[in-house]
Formats: sequence, structure tokens, C-alpha cells
Amino acid sequence: MLGRSRLLKASIRCFSDHLTNTPSSSSHPKVVLAGIQPTGSPHLGNYFGFIEPWLDIQKNEASDVPLYLSIVDQHAISMGPIIPAEKLRLNTRKMAASLIACGIDPKRTTLFRQSDVPEISQMNWILGSLQTLAQLQRLPQFKDKSTKFSRGSIPIGLLIYPLLQAADVFTFKGTHVPVGEDQSQHMNLMNNLAFAFNSTYKLEFFPLPKQITRQAHARIRSLRDPRQKMSKSDPSVRGRIDVDDSEAVVMEKCRKAMSDTITTVSYDKSNRPAISNMIEILAATTRRSLDETISLSSTWTHTELKDNLTTAINRLLGPIRERLNYYEQRPQELEEILAENGVRARMAAKKVLLETRELVGLC
Amino acid sequence: MLGRSRLLKASIRCFSDHLTNTPSSSSHPKVVLAGIQPTGSPHLGNYFGFIEPWLDIQKNEASDVPLYLSIVDQHAISMGPIIPAEKLRLNTRKMAASLIACGIDPKRTTLFRQSDVPEISQMNWILGSLQTLAQLQRLPQFKDKSTKFSRGSIPIGLLIYPLLQAADVFTFKGTHVPVGEDQSQHMNLMNNLAFAFNSTYKLEFFPLPKQITRQAHARIRSLRDPRQKMSKSDPSVRGRIDVDDSEAVVMEKCRKAMSDTITTVSYDKSNRPAISNMIEILAATTRRSLDETISLSSTWTHTELKDNLTTAINRLLGPIRERLNYYEQRPQELEEILAENGVRARMAAKKVLLETRELVGLC
Repeated sequence: MLGRSRLLKASIRCFSDHLTNTPSSSSHPKVVLAGIQPTGSPHLGNYFGFIEPWLDIQKNEASDVPLYLSIVDQHAISMGPIIPAEKLRLNTRKMAASLIACGIDPKRTTLFRQSDVPEISQMNWILGSLQTLAQLQRLPQFKDKSTKFSRGSIPIGLLIYPLLQAADVFTFKGTHVPVGEDQSQHMNLMNNLAFAFNSTYKLEFFPLPKQITRQAHARIRSLRDPRQKMSKSDPSVRGRIDVDDSEAVVMEKCRKAMSDTITTVSYDKSNRPAISNMIEILAATTRRSLDETISLSSTWTHTELKDNLTTAINRLLGPIRERLNYYEQRPQELEEILAENGVRARMAAKKVLLETRELVGLC
Repeated sequence: MLGRSRLLKASIRCFSDHLTNTPSSSSHPKVVLAGIQPTGSPHLGNYFGFIEPWLDIQKNEASDVPLYLSIVDQHAISMGPIIPAEKLRLNTRKMAASLIACGIDPKRTTLFRQSDVPEISQMNWILGSLQTLAQLQRLPQFKDKSTKFSRGSIPIGLLIYPLLQAADVFTFKGTHVPVGEDQSQHMNLMNNLAFAFNSTYKLEFFPLPKQITRQAHARIRSLRDPRQKMSKSDPSVRGRIDVDDSEAVVMEKCRKAMSDTITTVSYDKSNRPAISNMIEILAATTRRSLDETISLSSTWTHTELKDNLTTAINRLLGPIRERLNYYEQRPQELEEILAENGVRARMAAKKVLLETRELVGLC
């Protein structure tokens, strides 16, 4: 109750700031941080949308910039338990192995299981003291997703998970968060929370985290329905290519990809979405420009496009599959990497949490 | 989403069980656990309602029954930050010192600061996966207290704090919880959660915690307004006696206590609530039966009643004040006790949390 109305005013002030300013984190050392859902094997949409940009971050950031990548297993149960629980455990491990196989270096990037750091959950509670029910209910993702549940069965996690997302970032004083555009409302909430916390305790304690949205090479669509994003929740597994798909499976999925009735190959997103999607995936996979790929493919048949796509994807995935296979044969080594990175993450988290508790009067 | 409808059915089944059965914890070793708000110095209402019963528990329970008493500093910020934060910090320390001064033995009772155990917050998140928004909104305390806020300003903590209460208990596999009758809805929620968790993961993992409500010696009322419970939120400090009140303050508060216009002393709760309240406090303080105290006081004047009450309270508080003074002079010693007990609590919490994470698939 204390300070609540002042807080709301602070939030409002902060919110209007967003309209004119990009939040600045200049007074805080740069910390790049992201979370990824433990969905098992990532697909090409995840690869080009998140993993490849992270590899660029890993390559380009100065070596003293901490990079945290959290496999957010606690978010995975926001909507209810995962049964059997073994599925969640295996999907978390598979995601960890896949990320490493894709080139995420666990010596450079602190790659950890969210649940290995209980301090994140404690930060979640502390941040909750600055949040109202109405603020969370107003978030577009809550409004949208809650309609999928019958009135009495909306999981409490659907309401409060943006707070846990904020805690994911704040526990490491994250300054830069590479997330998709669909997360900008949650980034606003984070900024409001950081602003409210700093105003309440009269200290520039938390950075106002900045969203990094990379101009993606391509927005990878489903191979079976190019109106949809490539997604784990696609009812047809043929719509997506997972990084652990075998050569034969990649070939089959490319061959059976939706095309259209025009026999030539040309790029026209509105009228030829399926062919255009394949051209975009090919461009992303070969790291050629879209224009070059359009020109290159202009003399091909559908079959040639699909064969070239198969070859390119298999060339990209070949070494990834090999490394993935390595960790699948050595689960203990993977567990050790996760344990070691969990300890590294906790050390950083403990420090921030202790400072936070002192500020808030919790010790 | 997974298992949600099954879960709701389980909750309903569990709820109807309450109507016929007291939840049994027979298959789990007894663990007694409670939380107390860091309100600074406890008053006589806290003393007779909670502390004295805990002293009885401490004396009567077998030495291998773990006793946990948590000073719930994270609950204290449920409704918003406490400003200045120093107030929360000092109130937590004062409560800890007072509890020890009253006879709670930190070697027998693990007396700890809730925020020293981040595992409780993580348990809170895990339990949230089994809870719907509607279930929390239906709780009478939420319905009642939320009306005190304007529509947009209900703190999210008011909605979700019963989950943290459950986590306080579950993190230690608490079987017996000495709390007031006003907490029985929250105890029901705990039982439903334990039942839902056990059904979901097909294991009798969490005990169904049992509420212990001691037939209190007296329901201590305000000295200024006997219609109200003695309370920290009483607008008049004269309504309550804190365990650190000096002899002179106790005398003044007793002398100025509300009485009535009948000159004799007699016990009649409906028509003479103020006099009856003083008789009840005297009975509790001297550990005499109410009947005996009524008979004893029947020849007294109001002044004699107030003088005898002053003497009795000062006799009770004398040694408490002395020990409190000891710790006030030695803040470092108090901090060491809390730190040591925090470590002890964490060791137990870590074990339960690891088992829980394994069951849920979070490691």
C-alpha cells in the first residue's frame, strides 16, 4: 500500500517516456541475456530467428560482456504441469545439447537451466511487490491467450509469467535482451518495473533493459502452410525442419513441402507464398542475399528448388547433427556442462539478489 | 493446460473430503511449521495467541520432531514496498529478538528469515502451475481485502500470497501448522494443492498439512476498543501492550484502559466487554483459569483490577524485557543466530526442493 499511488504515477511517466525515447542503459555495464523455452530440438525458425543471431552476439561482443542464455524450464510449466515430467526433463536436455551443437559455446555463454537458480524465483516475488493485478491483466498476451481457457480455468501462470521474465533479466542486471517483436509489451513491463523499483528505492539499481530485434534474414514459415510461422505447435511435423532431422527426413520434408500450380520459380510473397518461403529459407541457409537467391533460382524447376534446399539444409545441419550425436552418447558430459554453468549463473545471481534484498529491507 | 481438467476434478474431490475428514498426515513424519509477520515487537495478543502455544509445542513435542518458525519478510511486501526499507529490516530483527526473548529456543526451533531461503520462492512458482486465477480470486480474504483498493490498484501480491504461504509449508513438508481460525480457507487451499500435486505426480509426496488451532486461553481484545482484536493496526497504540513496553508504559496503558460505568468488577462479555477483556488478559497472564480469576476479582474495584493487571503483566514481561535488552545490545549475536538458522532451514529446503524438481521434470 505504501508508495502505491506514487508508483503508479511513476509507471505512467515511464510509459510515456517510451513513446519518445529508447531506454538507455548507459550507466550499467552491458549484459546480454535471453531465455529459450525447453521445446526439445529447435527447428529452423528457432535457428535463424534466435540461435544464429546469438552466435553473432557471441562472436561480436567484447569478451568482457557477460552473455546469459537461460533454458526457461519454469516458464514451461506456467500453464500447468507437463506430464510425464520426463518429457520436460528430456526436452530441456535436448535443447541444451542442440544449442551447444549449433555453436553456442558454454565457456563464453553461460548456458543454464532456469530452475538451477532459485534466486530468479525470489526476484520474481520481490518484483511482484511493484505490480498490480490490473497491470498484468492489461497485457495483450494475457488478454489474447486467456480466451483459450474456459472462464474458471485460466492458469495463474498465464497472468504472472511476465514477472518471471522480468526476474530472468533483473537477476543478472541484463541490459540487452534479444527477443522477438511479439515480446515488446513484456519489455515495456520490464522497463516500467525497473523504473518503478529505481524510483521507489531512489537508486539507479536496475538497468532499463533494451530489446534487440535483429532484422532477421528471413521469417521462416511452415513448409505445409506458409501463412503460419514455422512452429513446434504446427499440427503437421512436416511443416518444420528440426535441427536433429536426419538427411533422409530433411529430403522428404523438402520434397513434400507445399508448392503451387505455376511451374516456374519466382519470388512473390503475396501470390506465391510457398515458393517464396522456400527461396527465403534457401537464402538464410546459404547465407546468400535474398536478391542473389531469387536470381539464382529463377531458372529452376520446383524439383530443383527443393533439391537445392535439401542440399543446403543438410550441409548446414551435418556438423550440428554430429555434435548433437556426441552429446547424446555422453549425457553425463552435458549434465556437467549444465551444472557448471548453473553454478556460474548462481554466483552472479546471488550477488544481485543480496544487493536487492538489502535495498528492499529483506536482510 | 495438460492435466488441468483432471486437476480441477481432483480439487473438487479433495474439497468435499474436507467436509467429512480431517486431513491425515500419518504417512509423513511430523514437522511443525508456522510463519509470523515481521511486525516488530509482538503484543500480548501475539504472545497468548501464537508465542505461548509455540512454547508449549517446543516443550511437548518429541525432540526428533523438527520445528520451523519463519519470519515471513517476503509476505510483508505482498501489498507493496515498505518505505523506508530500514523499517522492514529492523522490524524483522526486532521480531526475531522478541521471539527468542519470549523463550523460543533457536537451537530447538529453526527460527529463520523467509528471504534467507530462496527455495521457498521457487516452490511458490512450482505450486502456481497447479492453480487457477479463479481459485485464488474466490478466496474470502482476497474478496474482502481487495475491496479496500481502488479497482486498478489491487496489488498482485494480495492475489498470490496464499501460494507463498503454501510454499512456506511445503518446502519443509510441514504436517502441522498452528495458525488462527481466520486461516482455515488458506489451509484448505494448501490441502487442495498437496492433493492435486500428489495426484498429478502419482506419489504421496506432500503431506496434507493439518491446522492446529489451540483453544486459546483468551482472545485478547484492544484495551481501547474491546470490540476489536488487539492489533498492530489499531489506530491507538494504547489499545495494545507490546512485549517491549516498559513497566511505566504498561501501567499507563492499564490505567487508561477502557472500563465502564458500573463500579464493581464482574465478567459479562456482552454487557461489560471492557472489564471482561481485562479479566481474560489477567487469567492468561497469570495462567489461572478464567473461573478462578472471575471469582478472585469479584471483590475488586476497577482500580484494583487495573493495578493487579499491571503487576501481572510486568511480572510476565520482566524477564522478556531483560533478554530483549541483551540482544539489542548485541545485534551481531542475533544476526549470527539468524544466519545459522537460515543455513539449517536451507539445508532442509534444498533437499525437498531437489526432490520436487525431479518429480516435476525441472532437473
